[in-house]
Amino acid sequence: MSRRDITDQIVQAKLRQGVSWADLAGLIGRPEVWTVAALLGEHPIVLDDAKKILRRLGLDEGEAYMLTNTPYRGSSQTSPPTDPTIYRFHEALLVYGPALKELIHEKFGDGIMSAINFSIDVDRKDDSAGDRVVVTMSGKFLAYEWNA
Amino acid sequence: MSRRDITDQIVQAKLRQGVSWADLAGLIGRPEVWTVAALLGEHPIVLDDAKKILRRLGLDEGEAYMLTNTPYRGSSQTSPPTDPTIYRFHEALLVYGPALKELIHEKFGDGIMSAINFSIDVDRKDDSAGDRVVVTMSGKFLAYEWNA
Amino acid sequence: MSRRDITDQIVQAKLRQGVSWADLAGLIGRPEVWTVAALLGEHPIVLDDAKKILRRLGLDEGEAYMLTNTPYRGSSQTSPPTDPTIYRFHEALLVYGPALKELIHEKFGDGIMSAINFSIDVDRKDDSAGDRVVVTMSGKFLAYEWNA
Amino acid sequence: MSRRDITDQIVQAKLRQGVSWADLAGLIGRPEVWTVAALLGEHPIVLDDAKKILRRLGLDEGEAYMLTNTPYRGSSQTSPPTDPTIYRFHEALLVYGPALKELIHEKFGDGIMSAINFSIDVDRKDDSAGDRVVVTMSGKFLAYEWNA
Amino acid sequence: MSRRDITDQIVQAKLRQGVSWADLAGLIGRPEVWTVAALLGEHPIVLDDAKKILRRLGLDEGEAYMLTNTPYRGSSQTSPPTDPTIYRFHEALLVYGPALKELIHEKFGDGIMSAINFSIDVDRKDDSAGDRVVVTMSGKFLAYEWNA
Amino acid sequence: MSRRDITDQIVQAKLRQGVSWADLAGLIGRPEVWTVAALLGEHPIVLDDAKKILRRLGLDEGEAYMLTNTPYRGSSQTSPPTDPTIYRFHEALLVYGPALKELIHEKFGDGIMSAINFSIDVDRKDDSAGDRVVVTMSGKFLAYEWNA
Amino acid sequence: MSRRDITDQIVQAKLRQGVSWADLAGLIGRPEVWTVAALLGEHPIVLDDAKKILRRLGLDEGEAYMLTNTPYRGSSQTSPPTDPTIYRFHEALLVYGPALKELIHEKFGDGIMSAINFSIDVDRKDDSAGDRVVVTMSGKFLAYEWNA
Amino acid sequence: MSRRDITDQIVQAKLRQGVSWADLAGLIGRPEVWTVAALLGEHPIVLDDAKKILRRLGLDEGEAYMLTNTPYRGSSQTSPPTDPTIYRFHEALLVYGPALKELIHEKFGDGIMSAINFSIDVDRKDDSAGDRVVVTMSGKFLAYEWNA
Amino acid sequence: MSRRDITDQIVQAKLRQGVSWADLAGLIGRPEVWTVAALLGEHPIVLDDAKKILRRLGLDEGEAYMLTNTPYRGSSQTSPPTDPTIYRFHEALLVYGPALKELIHEKFGDGIMSAINFSIDVDRKDDSAGDRVVVTMSGKFLAYEWNA
Amino acid sequence: MSRRDITDQIVQAKLRQGVSWADLAGLIGRPEVWTVAALLGEHPIVLDDAKKILRRLGLDEGEAYMLTNTPYRGSSQTSPPTDPTIYRFHEALLVYGPALKELIHEKFGDGIMSAINFSIDVDRKDDSAGDRVVVTMSGKFLAYEWNA
Repeated sequence: MSRRDITDQIVQAKLRQGVSWADLAGLIGRPEVWTVAALLGEHPIVLDDAKKILRRLGLDEGEAYMLTNTPYRGSSQTSPPTDPTIYRFHEALLVYGPALKELIHEKFGDGIMSAINFSIDVDRKDDSAGDRVVVTMSGKFLAYEWNA
Repeated sequence: MSRRDITDQIVQAKLRQGVSWADLAGLIGRPEVWTVAALLGEHPIVLDDAKKILRRLGLDEGEAYMLTNTPYRGSSQTSPPTDPTIYRFHEALLVYGPALKELIHEKFGDGIMSAINFSIDVDRKDDSAGDRVVVTMSGKFLAYEWNA
Repeated sequence: MSRRDITDQIVQAKLRQGVSWADLAGLIGRPEVWTVAALLGEHPIVLDDAKKILRRLGLDEGEAYMLTNTPYRGSSQTSPPTDPTIYRFHEALLVYGPALKELIHEKFGDGIMSAINFSIDVDRKDDSAGDRVVVTMSGKFLAYEWNA
Repeated sequence: MSRRDITDQIVQAKLRQGVSWADLAGLIGRPEVWTVAALLGEHPIVLDDAKKILRRLGLDEGEAYMLTNTPYRGSSQTSPPTDPTIYRFHEALLVYGPALKELIHEKFGDGIMSAINFSIDVDRKDDSAGDRVVVTMSGKFLAYEWNA
Repeated sequence: MSRRDITDQIVQAKLRQGVSWADLAGLIGRPEVWTVAALLGEHPIVLDDAKKILRRLGLDEGEAYMLTNTPYRGSSQTSPPTDPTIYRFHEALLVYGPALKELIHEKFGDGIMSAINFSIDVDRKDDSAGDRVVVTMSGKFLAYEWNA
Repeated sequence: MSRRDITDQIVQAKLRQGVSWADLAGLIGRPEVWTVAALLGEHPIVLDDAKKILRRLGLDEGEAYMLTNTPYRGSSQTSPPTDPTIYRFHEALLVYGPALKELIHEKFGDGIMSAINFSIDVDRKDDSAGDRVVVTMSGKFLAYEWNA
Repeated sequence: MSRRDITDQIVQAKLRQGVSWADLAGLIGRPEVWTVAALLGEHPIVLDDAKKILRRLGLDEGEAYMLTNTPYRGSSQTSPPTDPTIYRFHEALLVYGPALKELIHEKFGDGIMSAINFSIDVDRKDDSAGDRVVVTMSGKFLAYEWNA
Repeated sequence: MSRRDITDQIVQAKLRQGVSWADLAGLIGRPEVWTVAALLGEHPIVLDDAKKILRRLGLDEGEAYMLTNTPYRGSSQTSPPTDPTIYRFHEALLVYGPALKELIHEKFGDGIMSAINFSIDVDRKDDSAGDRVVVTMSGKFLAYEWNA
Repeated sequence: MSRRDITDQIVQAKLRQGVSWADLAGLIGRPEVWTVAALLGEHPIVLDDAKKILRRLGLDEGEAYMLTNTPYRGSSQTSPPTDPTIYRFHEALLVYGPALKELIHEKFGDGIMSAINFSIDVDRKDDSAGDRVVVTMSGKFLAYEWNA
Repeated sequence: MSRRDITDQIVQAKLRQGVSWADLAGLIGRPEVWTVAALLGEHPIVLDDAKKILRRLGLDEGEAYMLTNTPYRGSSQTSPPTDPTIYRFHEALLVYGPALKELIHEKFGDGIMSAINFSIDVDRKDDSAGDRVVVTMSGKFLAYEWNA
């Protein structure tokens, strides 16, 4: 069974069992976005956690070792994304990407925000004019450095 | 002169004059990311602000009216972006996009984060293990609603 | 069974049973375009309605929970569409898209027509010179607003 | 001077002169969407109307004959569109395109909505929950017929 | 069984049984190009004809209802086509497409040749310098008309 | 001046002078589609004919030698074409291309219709139900032959 | 079983049996490149030859009729090719394609080298500085001729 | 002046002066295909040869140094090529590419035909059934070898 | 079983058995990168080595002959790569590719680094500021030479 | 003058003046690959160095400030690259990319080689069997870490 097959089983079992992503993140004590990304096939999961998840979802624990492998990331989506919920992030990057680049250079110098030493959270913020989705990305600044 | 020509003039004059984006944002009292995006051709600018900017950069104020028009957005970049600083945001979306979708649905129900009723900030956070780039997006949640 | 598998089963059962889309929309009391889009995999369906549909088509009600999940939207088509009936809408957008943008800005200011707080209907209008397809889209205007 | 050059001149002169699209449509007594599309280079314009438009915008009437030619349509946009205002129509087609196809076939039989014998309007509808953009497309139904 | 599966079965059974396309067109009394296109999945076929075809090919008549559905057209090919026999038509369009457009406008005014009210035939013309493939397309002229 | 520059001059001069394509074809005694294709940059033109055309359009005859060169063909269009008049031919190929292939093989054996030893005409056929565009392609059949 | 399935069986059986392409070409008395291309799915094979091949490879002769059909050619590769051995031919075309065009026109006039009335061979030429791959293509020259 | 500008000047001067490619190759004593490719911008030319060419074409010898630089190769064409004369080589690669690969491996082992230690010629071969274009490629075989 | 199927089995068995790539390279006495590439389907493996690998992983040795075939290389990845670990090499090529070209020409003259007579290693270099990945490519220089 | 214009001037002046890249790197005391990449528009250059370079090449020092800006990287190439010298690196990535990923994970754990804290050198290694191009990349290993 490939990693993608296991991902499909996890998504279907989660629905069938009525388990939330928050439940699964709590079960292994990991952040929500990280956990969902990992279960959708974007991160390796340590063996004990993999077993806990599969057991909770009523799936075969014997496949847990497959979840410990570092996966090929980013392959589950078309580009640009067609799903409206995901597309809005793509659109924000189309409109604000160059501005982020300019300000990172102005505030830090030449370099990038790491997407590896990184975290990302999604929160609900109450607002009388309509609740807001707040997404926070935090990445270590990495300066362009020429080291051998 | 087209909008893109004016954008090029603004970027070159800013460099030549040694003006920062923060200066230009301060000059018109608008948020930094908004201001940079607008000056790179992604938002209309009210006439008085456009004139202030052009004057500060030593450019022809007579072209200010061109900056008041709502532009065609998002056309300045290739997709996927080749620039490493911008690419990292694209990569974060490849890896975490589906997880953001799942959690927005779990926390809010079916719908999206607006990229129109929206703001985005980039901040520098001191950290002894290396300073961090913190990008915060805030968008109004819009539920899928069928209204005529 | 994946969502796409269920969609395929629904389409084939509908044909085999000779049920119309209008029948299915009537069965759950929802608008026609919404219902067809949902059954083609573009919207979640509440559990009771999902069960009614599956029962009416002689399919396994046990899969109804799969239809309650918010799906990844828009992935069933190539772009540009090759089917002539769908292509004409794409062509209308190629020819009139920029004009719609200009007039939305002239009538409402800077912003967009929401495709989320939205409805779309297709009607038959009798006309002696040939009946007409009338498609009406109604989307809430969303002004560009910078809110945190 | 090519058609695209004249289009650019028209757009810039319109801004500089503070003329609205509605004014220009009124000047030649043609529908708004048609007029804007034509001036953006998507339709031929009869000579007298072309001269009226150029005169009103302070441009060289001697180029009016260029506007009478049937243009190569649809070439001014990337696909998919990056501009958010135009993209929402593309998104609506991604989500509802197959549903429109199914219902056109159910209501009319095998065939298409013409995009040639066609009109499209954009209106503002007041609504206490937020004004709405209403776009109405009307196209003659054309049945698949095998005629030599 | 999907429409594409049935198409595959038809193509293989036709080969195995040594039936010609002309035979199948004759069996249902329809034009050759129309019949082949329909059997390759591009047109719906009325139930009686579908049954005749399946019976003649030794296939399961119970699937005939699937052939009565209006299919999603045009999806069976890559673009541009790699097959040399099909590519030559694509090449003719690359070389002569703009000329056809210019002459349609000169002879008819602004508009198109319908591909819906349309027929296409392929004939063999004897020629001492080498027999010729003659393809004739006949489509109703549709003038651009703005009707609501 | 490049071939494309001369093409642009020809198209603009033709419009300005009110000359028809039929006039230009008559002037050099060549078929209409061939002449238009050649003047749009798809075929070489013999020197005397090139001079006649340029003279008739009031252009510089000294550039006639540029029209005698065999051009790089097919580069003036995007694929798929966005123009509706040209797109309909592309659509006909999407829907009927495989059927043409099957019937060419059935009537002639393995091989192609040449697009080089070839002609294409566009005619107006009167029809009380609406005049028709009739396009006839005639290409020599070329059998697959393995010759050294 | 589709043509592609049979191709896969042929390739695997050839490996398993340790048969060379030269053996298979010899078995049916056809040129090597032609034979390999045909067995990879690019040419029809006459029934007797198809049976000989399948028998030699220990495969089911009952499928031989499938090999007699004219296949859809050229669909087995991505473009540009990723395989280094095939890519070098693509690279030669990138570098020398326009030069071949210029010299064909200079030596023959306006026209093409046929890829239908055509042969291609690959030979090994001993050379003390390293043996050489020699590929020879021979195609009939086809002049652009306008015949109806 | 960029390399591409000089290429354009060479092509136009060659036409204006009525010089053949064979003349130019003879002038510098180099093979025809090599010379044409070099003059179209695909190879560097030694200074003396570059001067001879420019002088013969009546162009500015002062730009000869630009022709001595190793150029970025292969960038002058779209892929796949739209020009029919060039496309036939692309088509031959679509149909015979995998067969060439198989036979190179069978005759030489694992490796490639070099496109660097390489030559390519185009010749005219008289043939009573129609003269033939014969293209011969000769490339050194390079075995896959793992050397550090 | 296709080569890709065997690759999938190898990857899953390696994980299940807890065998490292270094173990497998040691088992057959070949370099690490070469071994991993070969087992992922990019190089042929001699029969004895193939058997050793399959035996070590508990797989069917009878399929070893499939691993001895020269595979179609490079087809397992999308381009550009979405996986961050692989993308960084693509990014390095975007930023430094032209510089490598310029310096190869300056140090060696016109030509290329062979990717066939080639080796590539990945090493871990300890560094107090963070260990480093060191990748060394060594390819024979091949001068552009015109040999027949 | 845009950054790309200055790059073009630098490349042409370098050729005209007969200056080597090594000279320019020596002039500013920076590594060769870094210097060439920077002068081709991929890195910012400090003002004094920019002035030295422009002076050495006889260009306008007044434009030096343009070279100090952090550029949009990676935009000068098509993907995949058509130039054979650059393509070989792309090919190496197609063949060995997944193997590099697997071994980085095996030697370091989950993470990437940085392309920012990075250096790349190209050297000439004498070898009696043909000199070799040796390219060494050194990038800091960055472990996937979830930090806020």
